[in-house]
Amino acid sequence: MCQLLGMNCNIPTDICFSFTGFQARGGATDVHADGWGIAFFEGQGARVFLDPQPSCSSPIAALVRQYPIRSKNVVAHIRKATQGVVALENTHPFMREQWGRYWIFAHNGNLENFSPALDGSCLPVGNTDSERAFCWILQTLRKRFGNTAPAAEALFDAVREIALELGARGEFNFLLAGSDCLIAHASTQLSYVVRQAPFTQAHLKDEDVTVDFSELTTEKDRVAVIATVPLTDNEAWQPMPPGTLWLFSEGSPTRQATTVAGVKRKPAGVQERS
Amino acid sequence: MCQLLGMNCNIPTDICFSFTGFQARGGATDVHADGWGIAFFEGQGARVFLDPQPSCSSPIAALVRQYPIRSKNVVAHIRKATQGVVALENTHPFMREQWGRYWIFAHNGNLENFSPALDGSCLPVGNTDSERAFCWILQTLRKRFGNTAPAAEALFDAVREIALELGARGEFNFLLAGSDCLIAHASTQLSYVVRQAPFTQAHLKDEDVTVDFSELTTEKDRVAVIATVPLTDNEAWQPMPPGTLWLFSEGSPTRQATTVAGVKRKPAGVQERS
Repeated sequence: MCQLLGMNCNIPTDICFSFTGFQARGGATDVHADGWGIAFFEGQGARVFLDPQPSCSSPIAALVRQYPIRSKNVVAHIRKATQGVVALENTHPFMREQWGRYWIFAHNGNLENFSPALDGSCLPVGNTDSERAFCWILQTLRKRFGNTAPAAEALFDAVREIALELGARGEFNFLLAGSDCLIAHASTQLSYVVRQAPFTQAHLKDEDVTVDFSELTTEKDRVAVIATVPLTDNEAWQPMPPGTLWLFSEGSPTRQATTVAGVKRKPAGVQERS
Repeated sequence: MCQLLGMNCNIPTDICFSFTGFQARGGATDVHADGWGIAFFEGQGARVFLDPQPSCSSPIAALVRQYPIRSKNVVAHIRKATQGVVALENTHPFMREQWGRYWIFAHNGNLENFSPALDGSCLPVGNTDSERAFCWILQTLRKRFGNTAPAAEALFDAVREIALELGARGEFNFLLAGSDCLIAHASTQLSYVVRQAPFTQAHLKDEDVTVDFSELTTEKDRVAVIATVPLTDNEAWQPMPPGTLWLFSEGSPTRQATTVAGVKRKPAGVQERS
């Protein structure tokens, strides 16, 4: 399997601290050594760093760890291959343009025998279930919304229907980001933490690194970090119950829904913010 | 304006030497300081490094210069903005997927008042004439070839028709690359050199750096380098006449055509290889 890392903020923020811990899991403190990638939105633009090498020893990962790129939406992934060989074209996150905007997708899980009927508007380049799922999501959204990008809430509701359908086929944890929002699906395992005033110290699990966010932030800053497994050992990470979809916007979870058919429960530990 | 750099090889080759000279032109030896980018194909995969900072001082450019990524097709660009603000979304090269393959595009020139009728299959994210031209090229090719990727020669012939049309509207030097070929359009200024056995020394124009390719290559290697302005001062760069389109494959120019209406001349200094 793989691990996911996402960040959604109300002002452009660098991810150097969280990425330092995440990077170590790509071959050093954990087994996800089949490539890694990270995507940053900056305004409407997006840049994606990919490497089919293990992140723990990748020169590109070393650069990303040290070079503070400030972004409101970040998606990162370290891979332990299930479907598809270890190759650049199978390295997450994947990027496509739709409605004149970039979309970024990364997946942790396994959708067996998943061969959706793709119409050619968005096709996979590699041979992972993950990229096929991304293409299917974009195709479904394009059919629903035509050539006009929906608002984040309408997008979320449509993605929920797709997650309901695909989540029934297998493990389907994913992060889907546009320039102004991040949608996270907890199929089996995902947690998040919101950092906001009063800021305190955070200490990584995977490396002995501590940061005092109160020295680096202003009172207005708010940052949500989403990860397969919590990255720090002294913050109140919220487990996201299996079968839940979350919309993150401006550094907070602003919408959530279940993605298990027939289940209407409200996820535990969630505060609505809008 | 901007400058272009392309590389097409018969075996995966790193571009560290050529990029060293090119990088210097992004704010040090020349004025193209409004961002830069480089795209590498590796198999079917592609990775794009982008930075809206000047390449001469970009930490990402420093990494690309030192980290030998081996690729058969590379497209790089340094920007001097004409249309569109300096921003990540306006930084070349641009990437899109079509027919389940990635396509990379970079442009040097200026197409004034160019607002093609785009159908939504490929839309610009930023606001440059260059990205609009790329979307128009892909849309036109999709209409012509449907959902099946054409062979390189058929692609070339179709791109020639588009270059004939758009080249009449303004300066339109460009590089368009897929995983297995590179198409170069000389609208006003572009040159190339083919490096092959017997390999010799090459010396950069922009930095006092010499490389002896005979120490780094095998007899079978063949590398074509295409640049707005020749990068070395001791190699036989071939100027590509204004109004010519070139297909590079396996390290050689394999097809060329004029893109000026009514002109049938064969470009000077071209050897056919197939």
